[in-house]
Amino acid sequence: VSILASDEHTEIHSFREQLIVVLVRARNPGNIGSVARAMHDFGFANLRVVNDFPVPFEAAKSAVDASEVMRTAGSYASVAEAVADCTLVVGTTAVGERDLRQELLQLPQAAQRIRAESAMDAGRVGLLFGSEKTGLSNAELSYCHWLLTIPMAKYPGMRHPSMNLGQAIAVCLWELGREAPQTGPEGLTPNRTTSADSAALERMTTLLIQVADATEYNRRHAANADPEQIRRLVRRIGVDSGDAPVWMGLLRQILWKLGRQPRE
Amino acid sequence: VSILASDEHTEIHSFREQLIVVLVRARNPGNIGSVARAMHDFGFANLRVVNDFPVPFEAAKSAVDASEVMRTAGSYASVAEAVADCTLVVGTTAVGERDLRQELLQLPQAAQRIRAESAMDAGRVGLLFGSEKTGLSNAELSYCHWLLTIPMAKYPGMRHPSMNLGQAIAVCLWELGREAPQTGPEGLTPNRTTSADSAALERMTTLLIQVADATEYNRRHAANADPEQIRRLVRRIGVDSGDAPVWMGLLRQILWKLGRQPRE
Repeated sequence: VSILASDEHTEIHSFREQLIVVLVRARNPGNIGSVARAMHDFGFANLRVVNDFPVPFEAAKSAVDASEVMRTAGSYASVAEAVADCTLVVGTTAVGERDLRQELLQLPQAAQRIRAESAMDAGRVGLLFGSEKTGLSNAELSYCHWLLTIPMAKYPGMRHPSMNLGQAIAVCLWELGREAPQTGPEGLTPNRTTSADSAALERMTTLLIQVADATEYNRRHAANADPEQIRRLVRRIGVDSGDAPVWMGLLRQILWKLGRQPRE
Repeated sequence: VSILASDEHTEIHSFREQLIVVLVRARNPGNIGSVARAMHDFGFANLRVVNDFPVPFEAAKSAVDASEVMRTAGSYASVAEAVADCTLVVGTTAVGERDLRQELLQLPQAAQRIRAESAMDAGRVGLLFGSEKTGLSNAELSYCHWLLTIPMAKYPGMRHPSMNLGQAIAVCLWELGREAPQTGPEGLTPNRTTSADSAALERMTTLLIQVADATEYNRRHAANADPEQIRRLVRRIGVDSGDAPVWMGLLRQILWKLGRQPRE
């Protein structure tokens, strides 16, 4: 995709290419289209849509005014597949009353951290948005390294603030792009490491779940050992792509020692 | 309107009350509704709609999920009336190829300036948005003290970037609210002056046009003397509400001396 960032943003061109917007269960083609428009406006090109049925996505793709963003967008059957090649996955949430299990940052701090990590790490960044009605489920959020929320006004008697999807994405992308990062594409930190991608983290998660089972950890500490908790546990550590195979080798070795065949 | 700003924004409550979103020629009730939603999300309550016919506004007002913002919104027949009580009027524009005659700031700098001026000046701030299709006309922009644009990505072969109205307003309001101002409501600059409001500036404009005519300035310098240019000229100076009557007194005196009856 050939994009010329505007003059004032030339230096973060590569950051914009690293970022992938992942729309989960967006059922309304108009919503998907308005997300694509906001991405196009702010110079982001990578859109992925996760749906258990293909209809809204195809409708949005075939719209007359569908942009390049829409035409090159990918369709995925699950969050795991959509973020498999991402080294950082950030979930968005309106918070509300849900009991969140992950670190939560407000948008300005979250954008700063995403930019800083992108400058250090060459990997892809997945930014997840749920449906307007329900947001992201805890299971979907468990694929995220941490969470982001847009601070909103509070009103007496109103407990669940939520934004229009296209507006929320416009605000997030604006904030992500509003400051140039410390380092431009030429001035990137030398020898950037690459974090383990989500597919590797998910293989580690599977192995760790097996280890918890094989060691009866999941019986003694059932409260810590359900799959979503272990998935979050793995995302909280920072494993780079070189170390991930080492950790997985260790986990496989543990399973072998316990007389289990690792499943993968 | 009773609003509790979110905790992190308590200190700029009064700034949010000073700001008025003015929608000019928004013909689509859905658009007006989405603007009201973004305002509600970010704690802004004052919406004014300028239309030469009342239909879309009434439709938006009567929508089932219309918020308090929508219900208290005012309807105006002209930009001049909608901003009459504002001491600062800022127009938004996608720039494009239009030949702009006023100072233009990018959103981050514009937001900073609006916040700084609101902290110094107790008057109302009008933020004008045009229709998605045509934006604001030069005549409408001439009521503005200066202009604001949201920097967007540039693409080869595409000359007119423009944003979805609801998304543009969400991004502007987010940026306006994202930082606390230097001074909170209790810590406001003592003895804040109040700038002359737009109604006063417009009376000055009318008098100055008459003076230009009476003195034949408009014949010798026709290029500087059309009404929109004089309107912009008056907005570029900073007249406070105490000085405005003095200036108008002077202009009336000039007209009287020239044998003209000032019209008002």
